[in-house]
Amino acid sequence: MPKVGLLVGSKSDLPLIKKCEDVLASYTIDYELRVLSAHRTPAETADFAENAKDRGFDLIIAGAGMSAHLAGVIAAHTTIPVIGIPIKSGMLDGLDALLSTVQMPGGIPVATVAVNGAENAAHLAAQVLSLKYPELELKIKETRKQMREKVLSA
Amino acid sequence: MPKVGLLVGSKSDLPLIKKCEDVLASYTIDYELRVLSAHRTPAETADFAENAKDRGFDLIIAGAGMSAHLAGVIAAHTTIPVIGIPIKSGMLDGLDALLSTVQMPGGIPVATVAVNGAENAAHLAAQVLSLKYPELELKIKETRKQMREKVLSA
Amino acid sequence: MPKVGLLVGSKSDLPLIKKCEDVLASYTIDYELRVLSAHRTPAETADFAENAKDRGFDLIIAGAGMSAHLAGVIAAHTTIPVIGIPIKSGMLDGLDALLSTVQMPGGIPVATVAVNGAENAAHLAAQVLSLKYPELELKIKETRKQMREKVLSA
Amino acid sequence: MPKVGLLVGSKSDLPLIKKCEDVLASYTIDYELRVLSAHRTPAETADFAENAKDRGFDLIIAGAGMSAHLAGVIAAHTTIPVIGIPIKSGMLDGLDALLSTVQMPGGIPVATVAVNGAENAAHLAAQVLSLKYPELELKIKETRKQMREKVLSA
Amino acid sequence: MPKVGLLVGSKSDLPLIKKCEDVLASYTIDYELRVLSAHRTPAETADFAENAKDRGFDLIIAGAGMSAHLAGVIAAHTTIPVIGIPIKSGMLDGLDALLSTVQMPGGIPVATVAVNGAENAAHLAAQVLSLKYPELELKIKETRKQMREKVLSA
Amino acid sequence: MPKVGLLVGSKSDLPLIKKCEDVLASYTIDYELRVLSAHRTPAETADFAENAKDRGFDLIIAGAGMSAHLAGVIAAHTTIPVIGIPIKSGMLDGLDALLSTVQMPGGIPVATVAVNGAENAAHLAAQVLSLKYPELELKIKETRKQMREKVLSA
Amino acid sequence: MPKVGLLVGSKSDLPLIKKCEDVLASYTIDYELRVLSAHRTPAETADFAENAKDRGFDLIIAGAGMSAHLAGVIAAHTTIPVIGIPIKSGMLDGLDALLSTVQMPGGIPVATVAVNGAENAAHLAAQVLSLKYPELELKIKETRKQMREKVLSA
Amino acid sequence: MPKVGLLVGSKSDLPLIKKCEDVLASYTIDYELRVLSAHRTPAETADFAENAKDRGFDLIIAGAGMSAHLAGVIAAHTTIPVIGIPIKSGMLDGLDALLSTVQMPGGIPVATVAVNGAENAAHLAAQVLSLKYPELELKIKETRKQMREKVLSA
Repeated sequence: MPKVGLLVGSKSDLPLIKKCEDVLASYTIDYELRVLSAHRTPAETADFAENAKDRGFDLIIAGAGMSAHLAGVIAAHTTIPVIGIPIKSGMLDGLDALLSTVQMPGGIPVATVAVNGAENAAHLAAQVLSLKYPELELKIKETRKQMREKVLSA
Repeated sequence: MPKVGLLVGSKSDLPLIKKCEDVLASYTIDYELRVLSAHRTPAETADFAENAKDRGFDLIIAGAGMSAHLAGVIAAHTTIPVIGIPIKSGMLDGLDALLSTVQMPGGIPVATVAVNGAENAAHLAAQVLSLKYPELELKIKETRKQMREKVLSA
Repeated sequence: MPKVGLLVGSKSDLPLIKKCEDVLASYTIDYELRVLSAHRTPAETADFAENAKDRGFDLIIAGAGMSAHLAGVIAAHTTIPVIGIPIKSGMLDGLDALLSTVQMPGGIPVATVAVNGAENAAHLAAQVLSLKYPELELKIKETRKQMREKVLSA
Repeated sequence: MPKVGLLVGSKSDLPLIKKCEDVLASYTIDYELRVLSAHRTPAETADFAENAKDRGFDLIIAGAGMSAHLAGVIAAHTTIPVIGIPIKSGMLDGLDALLSTVQMPGGIPVATVAVNGAENAAHLAAQVLSLKYPELELKIKETRKQMREKVLSA
Repeated sequence: MPKVGLLVGSKSDLPLIKKCEDVLASYTIDYELRVLSAHRTPAETADFAENAKDRGFDLIIAGAGMSAHLAGVIAAHTTIPVIGIPIKSGMLDGLDALLSTVQMPGGIPVATVAVNGAENAAHLAAQVLSLKYPELELKIKETRKQMREKVLSA
Repeated sequence: MPKVGLLVGSKSDLPLIKKCEDVLASYTIDYELRVLSAHRTPAETADFAENAKDRGFDLIIAGAGMSAHLAGVIAAHTTIPVIGIPIKSGMLDGLDALLSTVQMPGGIPVATVAVNGAENAAHLAAQVLSLKYPELELKIKETRKQMREKVLSA
Repeated sequence: MPKVGLLVGSKSDLPLIKKCEDVLASYTIDYELRVLSAHRTPAETADFAENAKDRGFDLIIAGAGMSAHLAGVIAAHTTIPVIGIPIKSGMLDGLDALLSTVQMPGGIPVATVAVNGAENAAHLAAQVLSLKYPELELKIKETRKQMREKVLSA
Repeated sequence: MPKVGLLVGSKSDLPLIKKCEDVLASYTIDYELRVLSAHRTPAETADFAENAKDRGFDLIIAGAGMSAHLAGVIAAHTTIPVIGIPIKSGMLDGLDALLSTVQMPGGIPVATVAVNGAENAAHLAAQVLSLKYPELELKIKETRKQMREKVLSA
């Protein structure tokens, strides 16, 4: 069964991340949710990333605002894919968090979604996981079919 | 063997994408390079995306500038992961391309890297593909080791 | 009688587009309103654009937010004029939608109005249609006269 | 025969507008090129716009930079369609000119193309004029076919 | 007695301009308030500016939002000083109006104050008018003294 | 004879300010040029402003880049009009200098021109000075006439 | 005992600065709070800075919005460290204040914290003061331990 | 003798940091220069910060571009003051690096200087160190005197 590490940099980010949890659950993807701060709990953050693969995680989703270093720090400590959700909380309506998340140095990429894109982080996780868990493809197709019908019936 | 579709929106983007090719090659990842425009060849673009999975592609990397619709159009027509490279060419030094690439509607995500992030698009592809092709993990680790040594020797 | 295709990318854009409908009606311009998504219903969107001229449409107005690809996708599939309304919903107060709408590649233009400029999209449509339907000119002049009097009486 | 007024706000804008002239010529659209400044020749600018329709112009293309008032001033004095080309010359790489051109008050629209979008202003003019001069449609289709082939052969 | 023309581009700007009226009154500067639109009443706007000096106006204050052409159009038609107040109403929190107001072509300057800077437009008017009406200097000094005492007592 | 204080914050700003000197000279306006830094020579800067009126200056033009405090500091120490020229040198192509110059607290206005607007600072000075020195009006009209002819002959 | 000068440019900034006061108090750092304006009380502001060291202040924290000159003016008049808090109040959500505060000329630095970063200004003060008052280090460590525990218990 | 840790995130930042070295040397402040990457050498970076105080460092200056996490990561692992230099290399002319450096979470401040502000980072270090090493004050005053004379002689 696919397993995702779902991290946020602050307790205050939990409501936003709820959408991500809901979509992961709709795909029957298992996840472990943790609050970890790149700056306030640097040792625990590094530990989580370094042990993630051995603990059975297939990928990690990390959401953070302000200087938004969380996804990047996680990516520096693991080779499994890291999806970053920039969270709106800084000065430029989240643009600062987006740039801090996406502009990684060569070799340490973060797969970035839109600011507050918690929902699409989960959809992207499903598409990535479908490489290893092909049964996910059917669910993705079913989800898209429902979206299409919803638009056409509007 | 892993196989990647590598698309650019214009012939003028080919030099930039060379870095992506080099990194894919360093991981021994097979790729097919195509120039396809969301606006000038919309039918061919949709066809490529719709048939990508059946043709054996594991994921698609798409780079485009200006209104930068290519990655999004590709993502709308396939369920395999799509990595988007915003290319600097518009008015806001590529910020416009970044926003056009990353701000996808719910359900149709694009895994976005930095503006002109051709190199990291390939590294991200390797990490994503390692879910299905575990032998890639060793190469990723070796690459990171070399990067670390290069920094420490500076 | 002049006929306009009026498209929005999401059901949530309908209230904004109401102003556009009202102005079109004030000019006695016929229109067909549709919700079509460049990403969630790509096939239906392409079909609409490709058949628009044969179905008697003189021009198309398309409004969309976020990555705002709708007007561009429509423009890629038809030769009748396309007016794009960037809709405020992304990160930069609609500036992102404006740039995504206006920065089209050479040969596939979108006549762009201001962010949330639903009203002016209809006025612009009337001016464009007056080339083919000269009786519209009188109505445009009457509208302007009323605006002028409203300002002077303030 | 279709006839276009082609205005720029300064002599220094003439090289940029050359692309627009070339594309208009490729469609066999007649045009009259004038340098007129909203601020330095306000009377002549208003006169041109007020008499444009009577002089046989079908639409006006106006390009200007900096505060970029030219297209708007023209639009205030005529009911034929006005296409605005924001020209890069101010502080924000042309974004300022784009906003000054596109953000018109209700009732006085300017059909705006991208910054320095001289080429697309001409393509847009052709599409608009095709409502009155249907023979233009064939040329537009031929132009698009050539663009498509150029991309596919890349 | 000093006399100022006080113009706004729309009835909706009147509440904002109230601060300007109050400060002008505190300096016993006479003013005439008018709603005039650069785009909706272009002829009346040009007339006002062209006759301003003959009608005894010493300077003009003009406030406008969106494409914010009013101050510039006024400046093009008179040689008395024009103070521009960019009004917040467009896409970029008034930055667009600021740039449209301040970035005038050489020879046609607009003395620009901050976005929504109605209060400082009046203070600036007083300082400018003090060149011709030296008795204003005492009032300016008294105003500054009161401001200083207000800060120190905080 | 009209007399202007012309200040720049750094020796490196002198070439830019040359245009201002030329235009002042064309109006036969006397000026005294000084390099004074709000931060490196705060006492001399305050002294200059406090004594400016007594020394016969009618107004002060101050140009500065980066944090661009010069015009504001001058304005805090005098009641004669202060024209600020934001100089491009900081991070945001001069936008930062523009905002730092124009966003003054209530009661201490700076009449701001465009970034690097040295030429228009002088034209604005002439218009302001014409309130006290009416003979300047003729020169302003002559200058405008020449500009108009230059445009029309293009 | 460590002693800090805590300045704000306006009475309206006092609520924001309360967080700074609380954190300083938690470290048992003495402070003197003053409202001083770079533009409305320039003489008193210069005096405070020039006498700060002699009056026993170890460093100064200065918060201001809009053109945000306060920290820079203070820094020009003293050699003790100056921490600047840009306060959100201008046009660009405080980005303008940030740039005005941080972009100081060489030799006159301001140690800048985030927009509205009143809390971190106090933490930074504690770290700086710990160089002279080593007993502060224990309190800083205790504060960080509490923050870490708060995150881990979330 | 004062001792500073001087870190950059990449070998390519070394030329920029040369100015910082020169100014530190002019104050006779000892420093150790290291290339350390928050993402490519995360373990070594954390180690350096954790042992900095025990190794006798009084403060750390850290310069980095792109996502610019270096100063923040260092600050998370030490209680001595950290001065951050955002380095221009990302998409927004260094604004992205500035925001990533300055917007730290509460309790983990970074004293930020301007983009590429290597020179002022050293001046700020001198002012901070003067709290512990009072002999630095004389050198700071001498430096300022020279700057003042240089401006006045311009």
